Amino acid sequence: MRARLLEATVELLVERGFAGTSTTLVSDRAGVSRGAQLHHFPTKNDLVVAAVEHLTERRGAELAEAVAHLPAGGRRTRAVVEMLGDHFSSPVFAAALELWVAARTDEALLAAVGPLEQRVGREAHRMTVAALGVDESRPGVRELVQATLDLVRGLGLASTITDDSARRRRILREWADVLDRELEKELDA
Amino acid sequence: MRARLLEATVELLVERGFAGTSTTLVSDRAGVSRGAQLHHFPTKNDLVVAAVEHLTERRGAELAEAVAHLPAGGRRTRAVVEMLGDHFSSPVFAAALELWVAARTDEALLAAVGPLEQRVGREAHRMTVAALGVDESRPGVRELVQATLDLVRGLGLASTITDDSARRRRILREWADVLDRELEKELDA
Repeated sequence: MRARLLEATVELLVERGFAGTSTTLVSDRAGVSRGAQLHHFPTKNDLVVAAVEHLTERRGAELAEAVAHLPAGGRRTRAVVEMLGDHFSSPVFAAALELWVAARTDEALLAAVGPLEQRVGREAHRMTVAALGVDESRPGVRELVQATLDLVRGLGLASTITDDSARRRRILREWADVLDRELEKELDA
Repeated sequence: MRARLLEATVELLVERGFAGTSTTLVSDRAGVSRGAQLHHFPTKNDLVVAAVEHLTERRGAELAEAVAHLPAGGRRTRAVVEMLGDHFSSPVFAAALELWVAARTDEALLAAVGPLEQRVGREAHRMTVAALGVDESRPGVRELVQATLDLVRGLGLASTITDDSARRRRILREWADVLDRELEKELDA
């Protein structure tokens, strides 16, 4: 029942945005009684934060699993970067973006979203370092990994109002080639 | 009077978000009668789109002016990239982000925001090419310029809920060095 509520919440965030998502709409869509919903999640903020956390973790785990099965060598960097680009342009990103933007002007929501974003950000960073197989103790490597994640976040934002996939693909291919040149010393090590 | 209405709208978008911005709040803050406001901007959508357009153009012109006065050589790329980073982390970016995210789930708003974002995006691209003094006909250059703009957009998004300026500075310095290496052939030409 908890999972049904969380999935319904993310769907509504994607379809109607933060302002258009109400606890009543969520319980209707999930087919869960208001009482049961309030037992699990007393407020809208509890619900939306738990929903984005749940989906982000599930998608993050799927992504880590997919990355673990990528072949080594040649086109690995390109594949990692493209998978990150797709991940940050998915409906889960749109739901997270709704929460993020709402939290900017809502102190109570920010108190919950801030720590969540930090945790998610650290996890994405750790996973990307592992996927690229790079050594962060070398100068500049940490910044390039962070830049990669900020780039896909920027591309994700662009993709929310237009279909930006062809442009995204071209940019990420070029970016992967740049990363390979810059990280060459690491990959050879 | 038009300018006062537009400035008040951007202030409210920054402080209260899209959902928290009403035409009544705008006319109160601008000190403009409801009738006069409705004459200039019949709907909330007219008002918010005109406001973000107005401020984006003004800030874009300021940025272009500042970039035109940068010294050539050595640290120019770093300066350009840092100015872009600051620009995309300013309150005007927060106001534009509110509009952008609201448009994702509001068809009428999207019809106005879509073309505005395209125009603003093209202008930012053109200005960045000029500021970096690069030749876009060379392979990969166009994508690196676009990646730079998507990167600062991603960093701008990160800056909306935490003070991210120290991290942003480190990333953009590293990225400027990478850009210089990648574009070296262009700058030498």
